[in-house]
Amino acid sequence: MDLKRAAGRSAAELVRDGDVVGLGTGSTAAAAIEAIGRRVEEESLDVTGIPTSYQSRWLAVENGVPLTTLDRDTPDVAIDGADQVDSDLYLVKGGGAAHALEKIVDEAADRFVVVADQSKLRDPLDHPVPLEVMPDAHRTVEDAVREMGGSPRVRLAERKDGPVITDNGNLVVDADLGEITDPAATARKLDLPGVVEHGIFPPPDEVHVATEEGVEIRRP
Amino acid sequence: MDLKRAAGRSAAELVRDGDVVGLGTGSTAAAAIEAIGRRVEEESLDVTGIPTSYQSRWLAVENGVPLTTLDRDTPDVAIDGADQVDSDLYLVKGGGAAHALEKIVDEAADRFVVVADQSKLRDPLDHPVPLEVMPDAHRTVEDAVREMGGSPRVRLAERKDGPVITDNGNLVVDADLGEITDPAATARKLDLPGVVEHGIFPPPDEVHVATEEGVEIRRP
Repeated sequence: MDLKRAAGRSAAELVRDGDVVGLGTGSTAAAAIEAIGRRVEEESLDVTGIPTSYQSRWLAVENGVPLTTLDRDTPDVAIDGADQVDSDLYLVKGGGAAHALEKIVDEAADRFVVVADQSKLRDPLDHPVPLEVMPDAHRTVEDAVREMGGSPRVRLAERKDGPVITDNGNLVVDADLGEITDPAATARKLDLPGVVEHGIFPPPDEVHVATEEGVEIRRP
Repeated sequence: MDLKRAAGRSAAELVRDGDVVGLGTGSTAAAAIEAIGRRVEEESLDVTGIPTSYQSRWLAVENGVPLTTLDRDTPDVAIDGADQVDSDLYLVKGGGAAHALEKIVDEAADRFVVVADQSKLRDPLDHPVPLEVMPDAHRTVEDAVREMGGSPRVRLAERKDGPVITDNGNLVVDADLGEITDPAATARKLDLPGVVEHGIFPPPDEVHVATEEGVEIRRP
């Protein structure tokens, strides 16, 4: 938890007065939102946030970060977490089922910064790739993942009956593809009809990795 | 689990050749869907099901129960579970976050049958009432529940970040109202702007209660 907070704080330091900030989802991104909120309070930092989920929207409200939307503004910087990061800084995201809106906001940003603790580093990537899938497409997408040699699994919920539903009303299919040695090629294959967005992200501008020795900044 | 199966089987026996059946959500309703599937296979029972959730739709497919929709057909009978049942047979439903579509299907049915094991009987009702809430309304609905003297809580997800999202893309606010001595009156109060559907259901036509001694059928 302290590592997550260190990474979040490190990225929050990048935010400058007047910035529009993309607000990622997940526990490390949450630490960044809290750190931005502290800067708003303590330094009267003038920022507005574009949330990527109900979670980050509500956290921004709780932490006193004013909100705006992509209708109106473009993020100067987006700060977001990741489930895995490889040595070329390709990412797997979507464990929190928020990766579709995250990808929109993160790619719209002038600068995309990932925050992670060292446990997320993995080469090659082997985390199941979360696919946000339109409900009518779950079976055809599962079939396509099997044809790729992968194992698909519709993510089931714990606090409701049936599947997890994303903030956008879609399903999540976790596609276990084993080791992903060419993430860009895998990403192209996952662009299937009915897949709103897959969880493979191209390398961001920088990754703030929190280790026991401090926060290390990596760039592609 | 055996009690749930006994209740499900008892209700599945009510289905007649040619019936359109509303298919409820949850573990006891799932037992009924499985029992209907066995009757389709073993007795060539001619039925079509109208599911109330992704869960019940997929269970129907797995168990060989053909599907139809409310666009086209009206259920002759709906079989559904409940979270609590009082002595007048008022129900609290929505633990599975499927109660909005359940209410539509259950009330459309000529005959609404609830399946439950004896652990669900409670007088007066005191289960927090699940409210399916449009996302923009969560704060105003929470405020209204507090004004009623209740404790609202947005249901958070375990397998995604942030809140549980229903199959319809909405939130769930669990409204703890303490003991509900007049369910009809409480139901009227919960008809708030932004509440798509609350989890208080009027008495069904019958409740099949599975006890260690067998299945007991109660009517209002």
